[in-house]
Amino acid sequence: MTVNATLYVCTTCRAGLEIPEDGERPGEAMLNALNDIGAPDGVDIKGVKCLSACSNGAAIALAQDGKWTYVYGNLNKEEHLQDIIDGAAAYAATDDGIIPWRQRSATFKKHTLSRIPALGSNHD
Amino acid sequence: MTVNATLYVCTTCRAGLEIPEDGERPGEAMLNALNDIGAPDGVDIKGVKCLSACSNGAAIALAQDGKWTYVYGNLNKEEHLQDIIDGAAAYAATDDGIIPWRQRSATFKKHTLSRIPALGSNHD
Repeated sequence: MTVNATLYVCTTCRAGLEIPEDGERPGEAMLNALNDIGAPDGVDIKGVKCLSACSNGAAIALAQDGKWTYVYGNLNKEEHLQDIIDGAAAYAATDDGIIPWRQRSATFKKHTLSRIPALGSNHD
Repeated sequence: MTVNATLYVCTTCRAGLEIPEDGERPGEAMLNALNDIGAPDGVDIKGVKCLSACSNGAAIALAQDGKWTYVYGNLNKEEHLQDIIDGAAAYAATDDGIIPWRQRSATFKKHTLSRIPALGSNHD
């Protein structure tokens, strides 16, 4: 069982940019920058090779046992690092994964790609 | 613990259509049509009020304990019902949630919004 929340960062997609095969991808750069800041309490940061959100990269997901999973897209390390870190901490602090609207950053309000109920939960 | 795979169908979004407040939403119509066909073996169909994929509605998600979760969008009951049913059955039959590419319908190949690793899994 995973105790901490997991912040997945897709390291594969080019986010619409022209990047050589061996060049650093935007999601990989974002993952490195997030690791440099450091994961907040209650959160593990993990790179993942593909979140299949290729037309909305770079993408991240937040997941934790018993909580709604959230996927966010169209992110980059220049604009969104602190909101991702703060949002991951806020997510980890919730009971159900739903950060109260007033506490959500503009990034999390505007960049949601999808959310998925916790398995077996009362998802209404 | 949830044994079957779950096919979530978002019943809320208008999928870009002009629909009166009390009118049937496209996702709701799709849910009803899927239930009329009936869930394949190993799959439960569940309506969910919002998958937060509003700009890519109608949306569905496939999830099961220990498997990748997949989210698909821009679906409708006129074109995609059978591919959704067949895809849910194929998903339920996998060990990890990844339907082999050659077995995937065009709908599942082209309409993926995102996928998320199973919690605690080796997601590479």
